[in-house]
Amino acid sequence: MSGPRLAPIVQGLPATVPFVGPETQERARARPFVARLGANENVFGPSPLAIAAIEHAARDIWMYGDPENHDLKQALARHHRVSAEHIVVGEGIDGLLGYLVRLLIGPGDPVVTSDGAYPTFNFHVAGYGGTLHKVPYRGDQEDPAALSARAAATGAKLIYFANPDNPMGSWHPAATVENLIDAVPDGCLLVLDEAYVEFAPEGTAPPFDPANPRVIRMRTFSKAYGMAGARVGYAIGRPDLIGAFDKIRNHFGMSRLSQAAALAALGDRDHLTHTRAAIETARAEIARIAQANGLAPLPSATNFVTIDAGADGTFARRLVAELIARDIFVRMPFVPPHDRCIRVSCGRPDDLAAFADALPHALAAARG
Amino acid sequence: MSGPRLAPIVQGLPATVPFVGPETQERARARPFVARLGANENVFGPSPLAIAAIEHAARDIWMYGDPENHDLKQALARHHRVSAEHIVVGEGIDGLLGYLVRLLIGPGDPVVTSDGAYPTFNFHVAGYGGTLHKVPYRGDQEDPAALSARAAATGAKLIYFANPDNPMGSWHPAATVENLIDAVPDGCLLVLDEAYVEFAPEGTAPPFDPANPRVIRMRTFSKAYGMAGARVGYAIGRPDLIGAFDKIRNHFGMSRLSQAAALAALGDRDHLTHTRAAIETARAEIARIAQANGLAPLPSATNFVTIDAGADGTFARRLVAELIARDIFVRMPFVPPHDRCIRVSCGRPDDLAAFADALPHALAAARG
Repeated sequence: MSGPRLAPIVQGLPATVPFVGPETQERARARPFVARLGANENVFGPSPLAIAAIEHAARDIWMYGDPENHDLKQALARHHRVSAEHIVVGEGIDGLLGYLVRLLIGPGDPVVTSDGAYPTFNFHVAGYGGTLHKVPYRGDQEDPAALSARAAATGAKLIYFANPDNPMGSWHPAATVENLIDAVPDGCLLVLDEAYVEFAPEGTAPPFDPANPRVIRMRTFSKAYGMAGARVGYAIGRPDLIGAFDKIRNHFGMSRLSQAAALAALGDRDHLTHTRAAIETARAEIARIAQANGLAPLPSATNFVTIDAGADGTFARRLVAELIARDIFVRMPFVPPHDRCIRVSCGRPDDLAAFADALPHALAAARG
Repeated sequence: MSGPRLAPIVQGLPATVPFVGPETQERARARPFVARLGANENVFGPSPLAIAAIEHAARDIWMYGDPENHDLKQALARHHRVSAEHIVVGEGIDGLLGYLVRLLIGPGDPVVTSDGAYPTFNFHVAGYGGTLHKVPYRGDQEDPAALSARAAATGAKLIYFANPDNPMGSWHPAATVENLIDAVPDGCLLVLDEAYVEFAPEGTAPPFDPANPRVIRMRTFSKAYGMAGARVGYAIGRPDLIGAFDKIRNHFGMSRLSQAAALAALGDRDHLTHTRAAIETARAEIARIAQANGLAPLPSATNFVTIDAGADGTFARRLVAELIARDIFVRMPFVPPHDRCIRVSCGRPDDLAAFADALPHALAAARG
């Protein structure tokens, strides 16, 4: 009696997953983390208006959410001064990246990204059988010129570029991004992941040019809006491309609560201002803690600070393990030379105090 | 300047969607519905414990949900007396059907379903390039023998079968379902959609046999648990098949609120008992209203009643339009001969009173 026959692409996929969640680690340790600073969540949380919207919508949870995400798309359109036909809402940027890869990439299709960039994008490309071409970072920044050159050389259908960048926290100014968009080869699409852009300096995000067929831009409520658990992302692009998402997406996939929360959060600009200030303070504090321990914090335009631990990947992995052993959840870049670093998300004063307490001991243990 | 190049499968997909939401209709009408009885939502709503869990979890929405859905899977495993490795949790049955089709079906792969069965399954099969083979219902029931025979004849990799059935509300006893499972050809998989099974008579669901490679069973919190807007479904099957979902699923795709709500809802058996009784009362009332208007309600094991409107599809479509014009949201089966019917979801007494008020006028208008 033979079982179901998996599709050939699926047979070739590894069983590994892009990230192991902190809950999984807590279960393995049989002990909770004291500070949750590893997933670039926004510990300062959502607008109180978003929480109130969730509480209000809870009684209506018997109804499916609006499959068109109409009200949220209208609000986003007003916010970004585009029209709603340029916007698709989905289950986080992760979900939207999956849909986008599915729209474009079939077996063997070339795709370009940076070596060490977002692994969930790579997961989706592998999942649809695409062929990944990786260009190195230039120092601690993604290298736009190398990305477009490799796309031209390989005939790539898709380029992934995050600005600001995760896991390094670096960024390029808008002019550089616009140059990259202009350099995207004909028939190729740039996915510009701007998950962290609300934390970046003025002048990081180029103005929207939603008629441009060379780029689709992705934003999220998971970071600046403090709603990672709600799974709300959106993409802005040409209507023909945006409309294609309707051919494949899980139409009723958006939680009704999440739609309501995102709509409320978008309207609370004061909370966003407050969050930005809290993040800036936390970034400075993480940098101070790093320096006090003889480590070098990298400049950051995100809600995390990547810290050069001063040695190689083996050492940084030991340091992460020692921090985790001391109940501090952090992560680190995957590939050399960035794996000389650890990555610490912005936390509340208590979270960072716990990090500051643990770091010298973790360093000593990692060195010992 | 050429735009992005869509994958060949996507190029061939229609821009149509499986369902138009009631909100879309309300916007088009510029008037809300008085009774929302078209989407088989459970108007009796979730357990108060689920609402409390949502309110409690709202403050933690800054955190990603557990990507392993650990606590919910453990609770489901206990509930169904299987182990957690047999369970995958996903973004509603719709989301899980999409993942399942992706796992199995590539271009040209044969798939069998019933003509008139769940269109979202067909949407996913088309979306991955599969070839659908449809067998007719036998009267107002899906025809298990025809499904397995067609699967054998076509070498199908997947069979879709819903028990109870939507849109007809009919059902087969467990013994018939077990016979179908036994008749699934080698190398084929039966997806048994049991979205409505909690409303069915005792003896409708066969016992779980999670070692059986011929079947994967899907359940949802959208119907009996009254949480359609939360998007929580799960599937139970062999660990090798269940594990394959991890190769492709959106790992962080489950809302943290939805996980918490489902866990709380599962624990409130009293509420489920209360819901079942309310649904039974509503089914009887819908049947009474139909009969009072000279129409024939079909037997139902679901939270809706399909009503034979006594003529053909053209008439039933007119009747649905006339009900909608009178602010009653209902839907109807898509294909003949079932499109002689309209489908009315169970409602509260007020909802059904509005339906009872509107029906004679809608009938007169449809006949006129």
